[in-house]
Amino acid sequence: MDDPALSSPRHLSRRSLMTTGVLAAGAMGVAAPAVGTPLTGPARASAGVTKRVTLYAEQLPGGLYGYGLAPGQATVPGPVLEMYEGDTLEITLVNTTNQRLSIHPHGVDYSTDSDGSPLNASYNDPGETRTYVWRSREMFAASGRRFMPGSAGYWHYHDHAMGTDHGTAGVAKGLYGALIVRRRGDILPEKQFTVVFHDMTINNRMAPDTPMFEANLGQRVEWIAIGHGNLFHTFHLHAHRWADNRTGMLEGPSDPSQVIDNKDLNPGSSFGFQVLAGEGVGPGVWMYHCHVQNHSDGGMVGLFLVRNADGSMPPGAEEAIHRFRGHTHQHGR
Amino acid sequence: MDDPALSSPRHLSRRSLMTTGVLAAGAMGVAAPAVGTPLTGPARASAGVTKRVTLYAEQLPGGLYGYGLAPGQATVPGPVLEMYEGDTLEITLVNTTNQRLSIHPHGVDYSTDSDGSPLNASYNDPGETRTYVWRSREMFAASGRRFMPGSAGYWHYHDHAMGTDHGTAGVAKGLYGALIVRRRGDILPEKQFTVVFHDMTINNRMAPDTPMFEANLGQRVEWIAIGHGNLFHTFHLHAHRWADNRTGMLEGPSDPSQVIDNKDLNPGSSFGFQVLAGEGVGPGVWMYHCHVQNHSDGGMVGLFLVRNADGSMPPGAEEAIHRFRGHTHQHGR
Amino acid sequence: MDDPALSSPRHLSRRSLMTTGVLAAGAMGVAAPAVGTPLTGPARASAGVTKRVTLYAEQLPGGLYGYGLAPGQATVPGPVLEMYEGDTLEITLVNTTNQRLSIHPHGVDYSTDSDGSPLNASYNDPGETRTYVWRSREMFAASGRRFMPGSAGYWHYHDHAMGTDHGTAGVAKGLYGALIVRRRGDILPEKQFTVVFHDMTINNRMAPDTPMFEANLGQRVEWIAIGHGNLFHTFHLHAHRWADNRTGMLEGPSDPSQVIDNKDLNPGSSFGFQVLAGEGVGPGVWMYHCHVQNHSDGGMVGLFLVRNADGSMPPGAEEAIHRFRGHTHQHGR
Ligand SMILES: [Cu+2]
Ligand SMILES: [Cu+2]
Ligand SMILES: [Cu+2]
Repeated sequence: MDDPALSSPRHLSRRSLMTTGVLAAGAMGVAAPAVGTPLTGPARASAGVTKRVTLYAEQLPGGLYGYGLAPGQATVPGPVLEMYEGDTLEITLVNTTNQRLSIHPHGVDYSTDSDGSPLNASYNDPGETRTYVWRSREMFAASGRRFMPGSAGYWHYHDHAMGTDHGTAGVAKGLYGALIVRRRGDILPEKQFTVVFHDMTINNRMAPDTPMFEANLGQRVEWIAIGHGNLFHTFHLHAHRWADNRTGMLEGPSDPSQVIDNKDLNPGSSFGFQVLAGEGVGPGVWMYHCHVQNHSDGGMVGLFLVRNADGSMPPGAEEAIHRFRGHTHQHGR
Repeated sequence: MDDPALSSPRHLSRRSLMTTGVLAAGAMGVAAPAVGTPLTGPARASAGVTKRVTLYAEQLPGGLYGYGLAPGQATVPGPVLEMYEGDTLEITLVNTTNQRLSIHPHGVDYSTDSDGSPLNASYNDPGETRTYVWRSREMFAASGRRFMPGSAGYWHYHDHAMGTDHGTAGVAKGLYGALIVRRRGDILPEKQFTVVFHDMTINNRMAPDTPMFEANLGQRVEWIAIGHGNLFHTFHLHAHRWADNRTGMLEGPSDPSQVIDNKDLNPGSSFGFQVLAGEGVGPGVWMYHCHVQNHSDGGMVGLFLVRNADGSMPPGAEEAIHRFRGHTHQHGR
Repeated sequence: MDDPALSSPRHLSRRSLMTTGVLAAGAMGVAAPAVGTPLTGPARASAGVTKRVTLYAEQLPGGLYGYGLAPGQATVPGPVLEMYEGDTLEITLVNTTNQRLSIHPHGVDYSTDSDGSPLNASYNDPGETRTYVWRSREMFAASGRRFMPGSAGYWHYHDHAMGTDHGTAGVAKGLYGALIVRRRGDILPEKQFTVVFHDMTINNRMAPDTPMFEANLGQRVEWIAIGHGNLFHTFHLHAHRWADNRTGMLEGPSDPSQVIDNKDLNPGSSFGFQVLAGEGVGPGVWMYHCHVQNHSDGGMVGLFLVRNADGSMPPGAEEAIHRFRGHTHQHGR
């Protein structure tokens, strides 16, 4: 199974990334800053580790482009990149294509030369290799009881240079992926799914060719939802719900967050959450889809297959998948 | 006054629903689960009561369809359905029409056969009666201090089967309504208004035929706002505001929620809040409207009439209503 | 530099407004209400001061209209108006134009005659002067531990009477501005920027003529983002981020708010946040832009110039500005 949005490849890449770091404090020659002292530059990142990753931007069949962790393994979306607050990620981007392109992250710290934008002359020319440095930080005291936020969140990265100064062609062709910054102590998932709503597609595909995500009953699965392109969407998942906050879980009974199962997913935005697959509802085939009616009718729908706890197929699941493959796109394509 | 979005019918139906439950623990033959133990199926719902409701899906004049609590009483939107976390709602849906249709809820737990989707063969054929079971739950501990969210929220239900596999025709013709799951201890309102922004309409009507909601000065009124269709909107209420969280109220001085009076209301999303009618601003005629300029100019505007505390009309109110009825739709319809 | 969205004019106007208040309790002849007692009318505002401001609505070159604090000084957007919870703002609006117009605020309390809407006959005829009264309040106990929200927030004001009953022509031509209500103890910024996404423009301008906001490294700058018009947008700021709550800062480690750098900015909505300019990333030229690809390509992009701490230009900044001015609008205009 080589679908980049499915859980196993993601999970492997997460694990490999999580273990390749080296302690950065010594390497960078700076001391840990005192909380409450606003600092600039890389000093604040020194509490964590530095992880080095090589990404390959490649042309794919069907006019697509993708990022991959090894030559010939580019996917749409690209691999999930992860770090803990305080870590630094050094991305060496190898541009194997004949197009100008870059990688631009959301949520983390970077100098202008890692901005990934033509504005700051930060991109890879065709065939060029270039290193981008992304730093992260923990929250730090501002004044009174308030804190300037840290980097933790469900973020994303994307091209910012192909076609236009905003990477419109690169994004349209698949140069995007998920970036997660965790706080220490955050609960780790067993599986991860990346869902990109991009114009009338999910991960640049339309039903019934959209990803079918799979988990066994009770597994903790993490969804990372990202919006791109020119259109506006709402992401809906059947039979599961999450808190509309940083983690999707409640911090306790006084956490005021709204609990939702439908959320705006618009260009440049992202969010994430964890659910226990089928918890309270049982195994089966559950839809996720854009809730804009002519988008779901037009193909912005996919399946979340919750198998029995032992991995076997629950009753009715085969029939539902068969219906989906045969009947979904009665309205075009 | 038989406007389904107005407060009195809603309030009555809420009351009747709240008193028809029977204890479910014994009936379902399961013990209450321990907090922190992920469970599947109906067991978790056993702490509450089971309420049984019969809904009638009917064709209405003007090409509309509606849900109602008794034959001949279908309305657009349908009745407000309510439950407390832990309760189960068994909806027996009588399809009196010649169309395939269903009822699909947001926010609650249901097995695939209560999904309301053709994908899971969960719908009523023409003339068919079918029972859908919606369960709910309280939050439960995940790990550390985090909790998997419960079901409490301002949700909604809608057709998922008429016209397309996503119920596009059913939603377009009025098959939608509000669903509220409360936590024990939540403050109850004196009045309830349901506002559905659906394409260029409010509750499938345009100004000046949109609902005029009424309350007396100081009454606690609950608004449930729901989005449907293909277009994107922003809901704005004059002279009142709410916290952008689960209840619309602040949990205390450290509740960080933004306070708002304008919120995105997009297909499949919903939210709710309570205000004290005219509190701090006095009685009068206040607009609620979509804040997209060509939507409000085109008819997505209605009135919130706050009467004096004794129910009499405040100065200027009659004139404002007269202006609204005469002048609102100078830009077409 | 007379750009109304830039920091210095804003900061001056804020300071002048903050010091012109007079104690209102005696003037209004009412006692402070007890917390928990729902009240109507102006009584609740009596804990603060009353500030009186004269605003001039004027026609500007290029078919624009603006609000200003003195004759001949109208700008697009208008001045930032500020108050603390409990304060009252009395706005005397001088209409120097030949158009019907008004001023309608979000977030604060006002009687129907200060609504700014033709519905309530609340507007200025051509040449007319009219006073609008905006009151504000602190949160007050509702029941249990919940509180009805106070007025604090990043709000806005705009015309509600030119062209249509919703002020569509006035908003389209520039009659809008930021309104901030603070809680006592809120951190004050050193600079303020107002960004209005209005159809395909930022502050009714397109790149490269959009505002270039400037700050020195480490300065605390406040962004107030407002949406208007008919289109939907997402506001993105490079290399900085904020908490998606009332202040943009976290209340502490248990504040569950998502941290974001991209947020929906749709008609009638507003939000604000503070960042330390270049904190963690260094000085340089950073983009802010709508993240809808054809909007950013079409001109919805501007620059945030973070100078060195001493105000000098950082390396590469001149080149970036030059690129922006020469190359941004390759896609039209
Ligand atoms: Cu969509
Ligand atoms: Cu609208
Ligand atoms: Cu835009």
